[in-house]
Amino acid sequence: MVTVTVYQREVLILAVYSNIVHGPWSIDHGQNKFITQENVQKKSATIMKKFILFVSICFYVQIAYPQNNDSIFIKRLVDETMTNGTAYKNLKRLCKEAGQRMSGSKGFAKSVTLTAEMMKKIGVDTVYLQECMIPHWVRGEKEKGQINLKGNKKYDLHLCALGTSVATSPKGVTAPIVEVKSIAELNELGNTLKGKIVFFNFRMNPTYIRVFAAYGESGVSRTRGPSLAAKYGAVGVMVRSLAINFNDYPHTGTTRYNDSFPKIPAVAISTNDAEFLSKELRNKNVVNGYFKTSCQNLPDVKGYNVVGEIRGSEFPEEIITVGGHLDSWDLAEGASDDGTGVVQAIEVLRTIRNLGLRPKRTLRAVAFANEEISGTGAQKYLEQAKAKNEKMIFALESDAGGFTPRAFGFTSTPDQKAKIMEWEKLFRPYGVYEFAEGGGGSDIAPLKALGTVLCGFSPDSQRYFDIHHAATDVFENVSERELHLGAANMAGLIWLVSEHGM
Amino acid sequence: MVTVTVYQREVLILAVYSNIVHGPWSIDHGQNKFITQENVQKKSATIMKKFILFVSICFYVQIAYPQNNDSIFIKRLVDETMTNGTAYKNLKRLCKEAGQRMSGSKGFAKSVTLTAEMMKKIGVDTVYLQECMIPHWVRGEKEKGQINLKGNKKYDLHLCALGTSVATSPKGVTAPIVEVKSIAELNELGNTLKGKIVFFNFRMNPTYIRVFAAYGESGVSRTRGPSLAAKYGAVGVMVRSLAINFNDYPHTGTTRYNDSFPKIPAVAISTNDAEFLSKELRNKNVVNGYFKTSCQNLPDVKGYNVVGEIRGSEFPEEIITVGGHLDSWDLAEGASDDGTGVVQAIEVLRTIRNLGLRPKRTLRAVAFANEEISGTGAQKYLEQAKAKNEKMIFALESDAGGFTPRAFGFTSTPDQKAKIMEWEKLFRPYGVYEFAEGGGGSDIAPLKALGTVLCGFSPDSQRYFDIHHAATDVFENVSERELHLGAANMAGLIWLVSEHGM
Repeated sequence: MVTVTVYQREVLILAVYSNIVHGPWSIDHGQNKFITQENVQKKSATIMKKFILFVSICFYVQIAYPQNNDSIFIKRLVDETMTNGTAYKNLKRLCKEAGQRMSGSKGFAKSVTLTAEMMKKIGVDTVYLQECMIPHWVRGEKEKGQINLKGNKKYDLHLCALGTSVATSPKGVTAPIVEVKSIAELNELGNTLKGKIVFFNFRMNPTYIRVFAAYGESGVSRTRGPSLAAKYGAVGVMVRSLAINFNDYPHTGTTRYNDSFPKIPAVAISTNDAEFLSKELRNKNVVNGYFKTSCQNLPDVKGYNVVGEIRGSEFPEEIITVGGHLDSWDLAEGASDDGTGVVQAIEVLRTIRNLGLRPKRTLRAVAFANEEISGTGAQKYLEQAKAKNEKMIFALESDAGGFTPRAFGFTSTPDQKAKIMEWEKLFRPYGVYEFAEGGGGSDIAPLKALGTVLCGFSPDSQRYFDIHHAATDVFENVSERELHLGAANMAGLIWLVSEHGM
Repeated sequence: MVTVTVYQREVLILAVYSNIVHGPWSIDHGQNKFITQENVQKKSATIMKKFILFVSICFYVQIAYPQNNDSIFIKRLVDETMTNGTAYKNLKRLCKEAGQRMSGSKGFAKSVTLTAEMMKKIGVDTVYLQECMIPHWVRGEKEKGQINLKGNKKYDLHLCALGTSVATSPKGVTAPIVEVKSIAELNELGNTLKGKIVFFNFRMNPTYIRVFAAYGESGVSRTRGPSLAAKYGAVGVMVRSLAINFNDYPHTGTTRYNDSFPKIPAVAISTNDAEFLSKELRNKNVVNGYFKTSCQNLPDVKGYNVVGEIRGSEFPEEIITVGGHLDSWDLAEGASDDGTGVVQAIEVLRTIRNLGLRPKRTLRAVAFANEEISGTGAQKYLEQAKAKNEKMIFALESDAGGFTPRAFGFTSTPDQKAKIMEWEKLFRPYGVYEFAEGGGGSDIAPLKALGTVLCGFSPDSQRYFDIHHAATDVFENVSERELHLGAANMAGLIWLVSEHGM
């Protein structure tokens, strides 16, 4: 007698309906082209006739193709997340109950409590906090600024102070504006910039399909621009927002002062304003610029990483981390940066728990503190791992938004990569078509010191820089299914590492 | 002397910066990890040293790998669309100036004018209209309905009449409600449904990653449900909206009455309402249901396909069609269904025109009339093609939203498919990872009679059924970059067909 195991039955079911459902991408939503339930029933009858043959094949195939089991588990995990996922509801709570979660803010403190509560609710084995010091920069009064044009005209700017920047004097800063489009151009202008406001107009390259590449390239204007300008005696900086489209939203983000030069106030202006300013400068129509900020760097305060853990059943000492960062900028709710990463990490553990699966290795969901400014949460996590001599085999970060999944990127040894690459095809049915070389995230990067395999989740990036660090980064701009599909793929990957190790 | 052609130079540039830009998916938006412009400059210096060797190789490689030219042209097309694309602005005009574009409405008439204007503006050779008769169904007064619960409680429903459905009497229809979850269940209940309101509660399967499969499976409830229920004497139908998530929006769409049975009024209720109603029925807490509609099927009116054409330079008699449909439902602006398809089709021609490229074959952008109800625009297009004995070699339709691209699907002969499959890898850098078997669209489907290769553009489907046929299908729910990236890939494909034929 041939005994059909649960696995074999699921292989069968999977094969049958992936044929029906995951077949061609063809789109039938025309007039008479619905797949009727009757047709599916007829099809089922035919399929049943092939059942015995198929089961016999499965019986022999199972040993030869152990990945069949992996694909079944991934399908179970994906189905669970897509059907019963709670990430979207958790994100709503995080966004609407905590609000903005800037390091040092009340919102951040509230989000620590909320996140711990969410982790407890899914029934993990342990939830705990890791205390660390975090910065406390406050924006103060709403910033204002304008361009003074010839003919006594004024143009009000959409602007915001850069994170950790210093304030202007109470009168604000008023000075002629000089535009630069590259660091080389800045250096050429050199000391002629003395007493000026430098306008860094680094447009994110719209032809880069992976938009993070454009952010990487233009980002220097924000991170280093103010100090580079101060070196030559500039009195203020306006940075074109690191946004890929044209609109009126200013995008904030950290600037990093170089202690060798004076700290000068710095703001981001919207891309529309940057275009306008550039045009008016070209037309020699600008008298000067003005802006006023009242932000402050206050003393550091206590903050926390939130950690939830499911102990491994066979190799509990081997730890797999999945995380995102809990802090956000203050202009909105930080829904996609990085509320989505936090709730996806929790969702991975919930999905596994809810299916009653027992991971062989220890799984940890981590909501990191203070990614946006100085990464002290990430440093604390490494420090604790070292202190406890933890064996951190794998870490996955989601910090690129909760958009539809595209890829995972890995930083590992070639041997580890070879093992990982065998899994790539298992994710194709769920929208992940690429396991790329190189990847990680700010919060897990320090773990490289421990030889941990680092992995970054890469969702589609087209919409990210519409909302990144701006007032538009709200819950309403997140898609439930996209968020859950990302979490589902993450759960699949974490499961494989838990089963097979690194 | 080695002459560097324009092609070779572009191969070089492409190779150099695809290495920098399109490298790993790794996400660096941490503290100190920006690619600085200086670094890029240093890198350039090293790269220049390899220039002569590289050019020499290119010189020999070009003949051996003709696809290099294709990849260069695709990159030029993509860059042009991503940098100067006007599809998003055109979509805004279509949505905000014409409003809803229901067949027979003023909005539709306005959209014909607007679309023709947009086509003229991009400088195509010819713009013309194809007249056809289109249906004229009007919704009438805002529908209302409720569930009457035990204890004299009422629950107001979020509902809308199904397209082409008949109205209730002025008093509305009030009757006990019977839920069915499959057509088999409906048939089993048979004549017990006499005098009842049948509630088709076909949930779209959330585990289907390609969401159109779920629509195909559950869609029978809307298209055929009312007549199937009428067959057994039902007096009204409530259909669970064909939406993948839980919310309060009803989703309309055409129902198709079978002339053998009485035409009974039919509405869609929101997914939240469907869940509530199902629960209350399970708890035997429902007395009856009520709804009132005042929609009307008026006599057909004149409508138009809008056609814009660039004549081919070498094989003008071979015609390549790219299109979407201009009509929409009336609950919103039809931004994604199918404003996006129309503006993408125009964008394909604009991109090619703006680069000064001369397609070998004739390119046609077509905005089809009346896809949503009875496809008379598509029929007219076929009819005209037959009358003029046109050689329709290829047709591409975008009617699945303007979301980030995933795939193209093809309906063709095996030989044609083999040729097409050689192009698949060229699209990978731009987010299209799959050339699937089977594909097309309602508007181009009739061309199959002429042996035309049919192609459907398949963007990511996760968000489509949040907005499909609902009040949420508005311009604001379309992403500029996603829309343009879809158009860019479409332009690449159309260009290849134009160059190489079918």
